[in-house]
Amino acid sequence: MSSSSSKVQKRQKFEAVFPVLRDELVAHLAAQGMPEDAKEWYTKNLDYNVPGGKLNRGLAVVDTVEILKGRSLTDEEYFKAALLGWCVEFLQAFFLVSDDMMDQSVTRRGQPCYYRLERVNLIAVNDSFMLEMAIYYLIKSHFRSDPCYGYLIELFHETTYQTEIGQLIDLITAPEDHVDLSKFSLEKHKLIVIYKTAYYSFYLPVAAAMYMCGIPHSASNDPYELARSILIPLGEYFQVQDDFLDFAGTPEQIGKIGTDIIDNKCSWCINTALAHATPEQRTVLDANYGRKDAAAEARVKALYHEMDIPKLYEQYEEAAYKRIMGLIETIPAEPVAPQGQVVLKREVFVSFLQKIYKRTK
Amino acid sequence: MSSSSSKVQKRQKFEAVFPVLRDELVAHLAAQGMPEDAKEWYTKNLDYNVPGGKLNRGLAVVDTVEILKGRSLTDEEYFKAALLGWCVEFLQAFFLVSDDMMDQSVTRRGQPCYYRLERVNLIAVNDSFMLEMAIYYLIKSHFRSDPCYGYLIELFHETTYQTEIGQLIDLITAPEDHVDLSKFSLEKHKLIVIYKTAYYSFYLPVAAAMYMCGIPHSASNDPYELARSILIPLGEYFQVQDDFLDFAGTPEQIGKIGTDIIDNKCSWCINTALAHATPEQRTVLDANYGRKDAAAEARVKALYHEMDIPKLYEQYEEAAYKRIMGLIETIPAEPVAPQGQVVLKREVFVSFLQKIYKRTK
Ligand SMILES: [Mg+2]
Ligand SMILES: [Mg+2]
Ligand SMILES: [Mg+2]
Ligand SMILES: [Mg+2]
Ligand SMILES: [Mg+2]
Ligand SMILES: [Mg+2]
Repeated sequence: MSSSSSKVQKRQKFEAVFPVLRDELVAHLAAQGMPEDAKEWYTKNLDYNVPGGKLNRGLAVVDTVEILKGRSLTDEEYFKAALLGWCVEFLQAFFLVSDDMMDQSVTRRGQPCYYRLERVNLIAVNDSFMLEMAIYYLIKSHFRSDPCYGYLIELFHETTYQTEIGQLIDLITAPEDHVDLSKFSLEKHKLIVIYKTAYYSFYLPVAAAMYMCGIPHSASNDPYELARSILIPLGEYFQVQDDFLDFAGTPEQIGKIGTDIIDNKCSWCINTALAHATPEQRTVLDANYGRKDAAAEARVKALYHEMDIPKLYEQYEEAAYKRIMGLIETIPAEPVAPQGQVVLKREVFVSFLQKIYKRTK
Repeated sequence: MSSSSSKVQKRQKFEAVFPVLRDELVAHLAAQGMPEDAKEWYTKNLDYNVPGGKLNRGLAVVDTVEILKGRSLTDEEYFKAALLGWCVEFLQAFFLVSDDMMDQSVTRRGQPCYYRLERVNLIAVNDSFMLEMAIYYLIKSHFRSDPCYGYLIELFHETTYQTEIGQLIDLITAPEDHVDLSKFSLEKHKLIVIYKTAYYSFYLPVAAAMYMCGIPHSASNDPYELARSILIPLGEYFQVQDDFLDFAGTPEQIGKIGTDIIDNKCSWCINTALAHATPEQRTVLDANYGRKDAAAEARVKALYHEMDIPKLYEQYEEAAYKRIMGLIETIPAEPVAPQGQVVLKREVFVSFLQKIYKRTK
């Protein structure tokens, strides 16, 4: 089997779990005597918002459980790992539905943003809440008697709060309608990226898999802290790539037209430009960044090229790769696990890093 | 000390706990290196949205813990009971901030709705999320080593989900801009009221107090289920009063001008009218309910008087009071508690019912 067809099969197997979870959630409404239209509404909310993305975060939970156990999973193990993967996807759906409302975005995944659907509009706020609460319903339903139950709940709480804190800093630092580049800095960018993206996209899937595998932790030996110390820089690097590709990637590569400059985004590119700008260049940036105006956007792009942002990005990428690989290599390649125990493995992180390094889409 | 000055003191003591919790939440942001403007923003979000209401739900937790323990609380016990009371208030703040956005309301507690503040607008969505997550942060911070920790978390999850489900049915049954009285019924009203209001306003404060006091439960003896079976009808009765007062209360009594008829609310009054209407009366209701028009509203009000809704309400109230008192009296008045254990007491419910019976505000 070729690696790409195995990837397709992995994805299909994971996708097949979603309807089971959706049906369980809707059955719960039915069991409480909720009317037909409410069940239909919730079904549509779930179907429209949860599947349909790249599913990288959800699949990462399953992949990590398989790597940690070092063998293929039983059907029950697979289902539980996939359930946790889908919980990460539910969390992301909760964030995306609400983020699109706050950003007044138009499309998501090639279709209208959920809140823009006829009859939905502001009900999307409550619908996003229900996507969030589905997580705790499903984890309680399938993990309540598991030793990891409490840890999983706390992990989802903590990650949710971190993401919301990141979203807050982003919203007040880079409002679309009020440009103030003095609020930007590479430090601020790093804080936003770590809180808004890295925790839920990188740490959460791996930590959920580790808890499911029962990896123990103590004050003196905390593999979760070790994982965090690698995955957060990895998530930061991933978002810097995303920011760079928004500027430099072609629509064919990134599947959309980049709008970070027009949208006043606190991107790695603008923060790097600000860090290197002469007073004259700074004046150009202040006058042209975040304007709803193609000529202003072109002026900023020209300046990015003038300042050789692509070269600075290449340097950043090489340094990030080396730094993260160095962190990964502190983990033994062939760890010795006590009988019946699961321990953290280098492979978990290597596969992440290899998927990301020098990506152009 | 007069009962009203003791009530004021109780409230002041409870209010004094809020700044402690707010400061702990903001200190957590500070500890993670969040910028000054983010700390200020969160402080304002908390101050604007959490205190300032009637605090009945929060105070009910403290009152219930005192009744259950049958003695005054130590400082530590008081703080923990008040913390749980404030968590109920945080949950309500999360619901109200988002409900006001979804309803496009103008004022709340005599000031502009939070989302209408300059610079806030859609950021209120994320700010409401942070009010919700504050609950789990505070409970983890103060109850993690308590035997009731897991139960408290599940209680808040479940209640949140129930309220969101109730909000969903309400939103799709009674959208402000699309009148369809065929969707209304007294059964639908009951479902909305129980899920949207009764669980979080009545069951949650008492159950949280019971868990804090360590009241045990088993399949054969579940005092939580007993409490639920009384508090949900009590909450339903409370909301029927609210609906009736929106129609019949004077602005002096209810502190606002009732708008349920104009807003197409799925109120007890309209559902009772629909249940008794002749075909001619039904035609009048269909033509005039939910219209942004004072004459239409007056027509509905006249019909309510014609159909003697005040009389039907009086009958409802007497029946509800008797029925709930009957439920309460199944609990022994002087329960014998095993040494060192806390058991459910009739008094918890009697004080609730007496506060509510025949209220006119
Ligand atoms: Mg967005
Ligand atoms: Mg956004
Ligand atoms: Mg981007
Ligand atoms: Mg409202
Ligand atoms: Mg509403
Ligand atoms: Mg009302």
